[in-house]
Amino acid sequence: MKNLTIPQFDDQAAEAVLERLNKLAKVPGSLGRMEDLAMQLGGITANPLPRFIKKATVLFAGDHDITLKGVSATSYEVTTMQVINFVQGGGTINAYCRMAGADLSVVDVGMKDDINLPGLIKKNVVRSVKDFSEGPAMTREEALASLQVGIDMARQKAAEGYTLLAAGEMGIGNTSPSTAITALLCGRSVSEVTGIGSGIDAQRLKEKAAIIEEGLALNAPDPTDGLDILAKVGGAELGAMAGLMLGGASLRIPVVIDGFIAAAAAAIAIKLFPACAPMLISSHVSQEPGHKFLIEHFKMRPFLELNLRLGEGTGAVLLFPLVDAATNVLHEMITLEAMRKLPSDLQ
Amino acid sequence: MKNLTIPQFDDQAAEAVLERLNKLAKVPGSLGRMEDLAMQLGGITANPLPRFIKKATVLFAGDHDITLKGVSATSYEVTTMQVINFVQGGGTINAYCRMAGADLSVVDVGMKDDINLPGLIKKNVVRSVKDFSEGPAMTREEALASLQVGIDMARQKAAEGYTLLAAGEMGIGNTSPSTAITALLCGRSVSEVTGIGSGIDAQRLKEKAAIIEEGLALNAPDPTDGLDILAKVGGAELGAMAGLMLGGASLRIPVVIDGFIAAAAAAIAIKLFPACAPMLISSHVSQEPGHKFLIEHFKMRPFLELNLRLGEGTGAVLLFPLVDAATNVLHEMITLEAMRKLPSDLQ
Repeated sequence: MKNLTIPQFDDQAAEAVLERLNKLAKVPGSLGRMEDLAMQLGGITANPLPRFIKKATVLFAGDHDITLKGVSATSYEVTTMQVINFVQGGGTINAYCRMAGADLSVVDVGMKDDINLPGLIKKNVVRSVKDFSEGPAMTREEALASLQVGIDMARQKAAEGYTLLAAGEMGIGNTSPSTAITALLCGRSVSEVTGIGSGIDAQRLKEKAAIIEEGLALNAPDPTDGLDILAKVGGAELGAMAGLMLGGASLRIPVVIDGFIAAAAAAIAIKLFPACAPMLISSHVSQEPGHKFLIEHFKMRPFLELNLRLGEGTGAVLLFPLVDAATNVLHEMITLEAMRKLPSDLQ
Repeated sequence: MKNLTIPQFDDQAAEAVLERLNKLAKVPGSLGRMEDLAMQLGGITANPLPRFIKKATVLFAGDHDITLKGVSATSYEVTTMQVINFVQGGGTINAYCRMAGADLSVVDVGMKDDINLPGLIKKNVVRSVKDFSEGPAMTREEALASLQVGIDMARQKAAEGYTLLAAGEMGIGNTSPSTAITALLCGRSVSEVTGIGSGIDAQRLKEKAAIIEEGLALNAPDPTDGLDILAKVGGAELGAMAGLMLGGASLRIPVVIDGFIAAAAAAIAIKLFPACAPMLISSHVSQEPGHKFLIEHFKMRPFLELNLRLGEGTGAVLLFPLVDAATNVLHEMITLEAMRKLPSDLQ
């Protein structure tokens, strides 16, 4: 992370986008939040005429020994199965990516199972993070390495010509670290942040909150130190997602945040480099209760509310066509001035 | 409309979609409203595996003599300019359609200007509807003819192989008839329904409400008779949109409702044929205040809230990629059962 600098969000480019929007053959402001989206894309890219042809989702997979405590409906075997499934093209994220004309990279950054599968990018920094209710999930070095995996992936995708990225994840158990991060950074109690994740009952929900609480008390991460939080109560895929966001921001490549887990990763990224906050695009509001706290605290402004709670980057990819629509108008629409001349041209 | 019958929404097909969704390699229900969308598409088409390759927006243009009273920021000349612009490809709806891979048909059903333009489909039933604050906007026969234009367009698009349609409109002044329809059918006061349309100030907003009020009092349309409402306080493009919705429903082709104007047209369609209600897909919540009353009263369930207030069908077209995403998963995802076998296949 030594060489990482985050450029400033370019207010002038964002303003230039708005000026262009106001010259087009439509009532000013009539495209509502689609205009906000276009302006943000202009500011991130420092381009008054942004457009995104090559899009990709980078999905990071990691496991969590805290699942051994029963915080989740399933266990690490499901991470393995889904990762194989994603690489073979049968997941929700695959179907959504095909809809959006986006490519998908699947990166093993901390899976428990060491699988050999052509197409799977292996960048392990751990083989599952440790149970944070019994001690730190990762060492500081491992946490730093997980961030670097994401930064490197952003650079690689940029080198391959991608100009718009989504951050996705697969990691059974990862609502637990995300809940710990959210409670800590948003100043909320663990019980109000904790949700059902992939589907647990009321009793287990209570136990899950107690285990997370325990982990926070035991590790006492420094709330002002993003790296300390990531190491002690985070996860490898959360670190890698935060890294992708930072790497993207450093290159002026918009990275779209998915749901709760990705937003927790974004919170870590912002804690590390506050300048990256306006460089990240929020996509949707997840059903997980913790997501709303992150949105509020970090002033994220998601565009969609569809009650998704799947992860994988699915909600982020649903924003891709809206990005196209929001930017297409800048390139393809006539101006009001030119439109006024159309009837006389016809005569 | 004599030969029009609306088939029942197919609950069994909708259930079959849900069953399929629950077998896929994801947590049941985790796709939230995307699952509702898939189910509704299944029920409309009576197909447990719906998918929509050819999509189109049908945009109906019409004018309103009530604009002579100053209810609108602009006048019929802008309808003409925009229609020329749409046919030439420079409108917001054009950019959005290209994003969604959808085609666009522009139909003159009641424009004041009689323009000759290759590519414009001319199906006039009037040359602007009359000022409804001074008498009925259309005769009963004209209203019926406007509905038939829409029904015919649905049949034509079906014959051309389109399986998903959006209803769009262009008609300066058409928030006024939509406001009258909404107040009447939702039992609301005109003043709470009236909005700024394409942009008027507070004084004109008050005058607009008074003029609409006058029109409703003068014409006293029968609130139980959709055709009477359409004729007396409606518009040709509203009738044609309602017709497109009815024609689509009769053929089990989903028609996506855009914003306030399209929702007012949908209300007329539902008043005429209540069975068409579940056959229509709501897309977004417009900024126009009247739209929320229609959504509430007719139990529409829009998927997007982006503060659009443009019309043209733009909000409806933004739903097209979500339709693709919602239906792609039915065809492209692996089942949970098959996924469980993946790791052993790998060995």
